[in-house]
Amino acid sequence: MKLSAGIEQAIHCVTMLATLPDEGLLSAASLAEFHGVSPSYLLKHLQALSGAGILQTVSGPKGGYRLAKRPDDVTLLDIVLAVEGPEPAFRCQEIRQNGPNPLPKKYFRRPCQINAAMLRAEKAYRKELGHVRVQDLLDEVQADDDGAIADRSCLFFEEHMR
Amino acid sequence: MKLSAGIEQAIHCVTMLATLPDEGLLSAASLAEFHGVSPSYLLKHLQALSGAGILQTVSGPKGGYRLAKRPDDVTLLDIVLAVEGPEPAFRCQEIRQNGPNPLPKKYFRRPCQINAAMLRAEKAYRKELGHVRVQDLLDEVQADDDGAIADRSCLFFEEHMR
Repeated sequence: MKLSAGIEQAIHCVTMLATLPDEGLLSAASLAEFHGVSPSYLLKHLQALSGAGILQTVSGPKGGYRLAKRPDDVTLLDIVLAVEGPEPAFRCQEIRQNGPNPLPKKYFRRPCQINAAMLRAEKAYRKELGHVRVQDLLDEVQADDDGAIADRSCLFFEEHMR
Repeated sequence: MKLSAGIEQAIHCVTMLATLPDEGLLSAASLAEFHGVSPSYLLKHLQALSGAGILQTVSGPKGGYRLAKRPDDVTLLDIVLAVEGPEPAFRCQEIRQNGPNPLPKKYFRRPCQINAAMLRAEKAYRKELGHVRVQDLLDEVQADDDGAIADRSCLFFEEHMR
């Protein structure tokens, strides 16, 4: 089981955009350059984040992306669901209904216990992701930063922010 | 993010084998037939379960699979890790080290906070999966069974068990 590379890129971009001065924008190309990733691949994920209301898109030659919400109002779960979609990782194919001498439908009214157990585990996973806000990630980075990390971002903003 | 269809098949097969009478075996072909799935696809996952010590393989024309452990000693986590492998779903590519004006290596000694947060969430997921034993699934099925589910399996064992 593998989360797409886009998840890592999306989280990093959202976290970076959370530090942009008000009204500032960064283009997809700039975000791709800063993170050393493919612009076309990143663009898909930025569009997904925008579609989910996490980022705001401003169109046009001076356009770009900014955060559409406060950093304490966006969680890792929001980002993962925006990029990967809402479906659970475990997709029950109801194989219990297959095979010889299948049981009557009445035995399948309640969800398969295997499906239920797998979904409960995913619920715990999503709950943990839902506890981590972008603001928490920013706080952790800041706590460890002697200024070099912030300086590097600021320099990039000066050159690329719209 | 999607777990492979093999996970569902593997869990169902392990659960079925947990109800086999002692020393009984079921072949990969029988397990595939009962679950209405592709034998060659299923075989890969049975081999993975055997490699992980969850199933025991008996070779030969009268060979097949049986549980290698007690049903209360096999968890959903064991099965998921056997089939999907041990790697986490989130695979940090260290993109924080990319881009212009990269920071010196000393800033990357500790894991990226994003990676740490994603892995903590997966740990919660795995912890939940680790709580569910095959015996628990059997107990749940039995609790709901008016006998028809057990009868169907028994009939299949009579015809296919080695």
